[in-house]
Amino acid sequence: MDEFKFIDSITQDYYRQGSVVKGIGDDAAIMRHPYHDIVTAVDTMVDGIHFSKDTVPPFYVGYRTLAANLSDMAAMGGLPTAYMISLVVPKDYSNDELKEIYQGMDTLARDYHIDLIGGDTVIGDQLVVTVTIFGTVEKNRARLRSHAKPGDVVFVTGTLGDSRLGLALLLNEETLSEDQAYFIGRHQQPTPRIHFARELSSLKRVALNDVSDGISSEAAEIAKASHVTLILDDDMIPIHERLEELDEDKVTDYKYNGGEDFELIGTVPIKDFPYVLEAAKKHQIKLSKIGTVIDDEKTNAHVLLSKQGTLKPLKKSGYTHKN
Amino acid sequence: MDEFKFIDSITQDYYRQGSVVKGIGDDAAIMRHPYHDIVTAVDTMVDGIHFSKDTVPPFYVGYRTLAANLSDMAAMGGLPTAYMISLVVPKDYSNDELKEIYQGMDTLARDYHIDLIGGDTVIGDQLVVTVTIFGTVEKNRARLRSHAKPGDVVFVTGTLGDSRLGLALLLNEETLSEDQAYFIGRHQQPTPRIHFARELSSLKRVALNDVSDGISSEAAEIAKASHVTLILDDDMIPIHERLEELDEDKVTDYKYNGGEDFELIGTVPIKDFPYVLEAAKKHQIKLSKIGTVIDDEKTNAHVLLSKQGTLKPLKKSGYTHKN
Repeated sequence: MDEFKFIDSITQDYYRQGSVVKGIGDDAAIMRHPYHDIVTAVDTMVDGIHFSKDTVPPFYVGYRTLAANLSDMAAMGGLPTAYMISLVVPKDYSNDELKEIYQGMDTLARDYHIDLIGGDTVIGDQLVVTVTIFGTVEKNRARLRSHAKPGDVVFVTGTLGDSRLGLALLLNEETLSEDQAYFIGRHQQPTPRIHFARELSSLKRVALNDVSDGISSEAAEIAKASHVTLILDDDMIPIHERLEELDEDKVTDYKYNGGEDFELIGTVPIKDFPYVLEAAKKHQIKLSKIGTVIDDEKTNAHVLLSKQGTLKPLKKSGYTHKN
Repeated sequence: MDEFKFIDSITQDYYRQGSVVKGIGDDAAIMRHPYHDIVTAVDTMVDGIHFSKDTVPPFYVGYRTLAANLSDMAAMGGLPTAYMISLVVPKDYSNDELKEIYQGMDTLARDYHIDLIGGDTVIGDQLVVTVTIFGTVEKNRARLRSHAKPGDVVFVTGTLGDSRLGLALLLNEETLSEDQAYFIGRHQQPTPRIHFARELSSLKRVALNDVSDGISSEAAEIAKASHVTLILDDDMIPIHERLEELDEDKVTDYKYNGGEDFELIGTVPIKDFPYVLEAAKKHQIKLSKIGTVIDDEKTNAHVLLSKQGTLKPLKKSGYTHKN
């Protein structure tokens, strides 16, 4: 068993509490309360795995960890309200560095009007930052991965692979003549798509997943949870024009398997797609149709990629975090 | 600044969300919702700091971490409903060991009828277990540390120092002719006092704190938050008879500074104390009056200890986790 999937493997057969609407297996958990549902998720980042001092200074360690949690909240269509942090801190870590981590979080927390309501700090060998996020969502409006249906449009926000290229630049694996700062910014300060996702709250059915591991992986999660097949069109996958300067293999890898863009991939009934386009326009973000949903009865695949006239299963190679 | 207190130091001046009833600074955070309040807390345990393979096998690592969180819930008077776990797992950790951690949690989760609703697993150098607990409490019935008033009775559940003695036995620092298993059990499988604390829910005002760092520390936290002084009577502090066999200095250290008993220390108006005694009897736990609350105007101390005819400030030496 892959240890990364350990949590998914221990899904309970039934829930003891009637209030649990969704437990393990989506971007966040949902608990029913009067008037609205509670959304909550936890995300952990480890020094040397998810970031290192060379590529992500303390301020951005805080910023990115909270951004990753807010991205889970966006992927559930939730409105964030509060967060808690747990820090494992090595002895040689200074108080100034700790404060910078907090300031990175607080900068983002101010933007979304959310509060730090609790936490724990302990000593350890390696910096570990764990954030628990809380929010609310209107009853039956949580955007589950299982909501896709044949006939839906598949869409994605922003451009893909930008964060991965930013990391490559930080690691000196790549150089660019222009736009270096843009890509590094996309790696260090990703933007959770909360406002856009909230704009969709009037729509009855939307499936959403955030792009933390690359769309090959996220699209497969939607397909699996919804028992459908997603057909993606290679020509329609949005990438930044600067990415096109790279080797073709790298472009393919970055756009399908580049993690931590924290964009949203989703599906909606075709009649609602114009509304989704309008919502993106209102919040000044790029939105692209990248495919369609079909019945999975005969495909025997979660995701099929249409490229240069052929239709092949899209390998879910996922994203291995590199520091 | 003590890094352990980092979280406490970053308390926000005001809360952006009107729903935050209590943020950082108590056993858990409280958020207002229609009909009831939401209680939530996060607790992290690190291999080599809070436990080690020698003293706490994986099953009990899970059990204790969830127990510590449930103890925070008890100290707020809350009814637990769900939890999330985040694991940082070293590469040499086996899946069987991971499963044992989970089974330790699930054993306790079954007892309290709560659900695992989410989590995250990542690779790292050192085992880190973080649990986030959720629950509910009736409006304005959260048992804050700030609720003590002059004239209150100070009480504590169970006997103190048992977990510390259990640890000493595991580390071969002590030997006992009898009851070894009892003390080791109190260290590895502490009992959160949820049922007892819930039994008090009809009382209007109770201050509660759980004994994670020793009562010298917990009593001081209540005194500080409530702007009062707690006078404790050395003769009335409950200890197991076997503890009396140890050196006097050790007895003093264990009972005041021995951490992780996960008992509850609290204060109530004197008129309500008989009800508290009855509640303890109903749940078959020992309950002792250990002191009284007085005005702090002239004492210039948080906690005063009455011992052999003298009244001296009780030093808060706290508990340093030993593995």
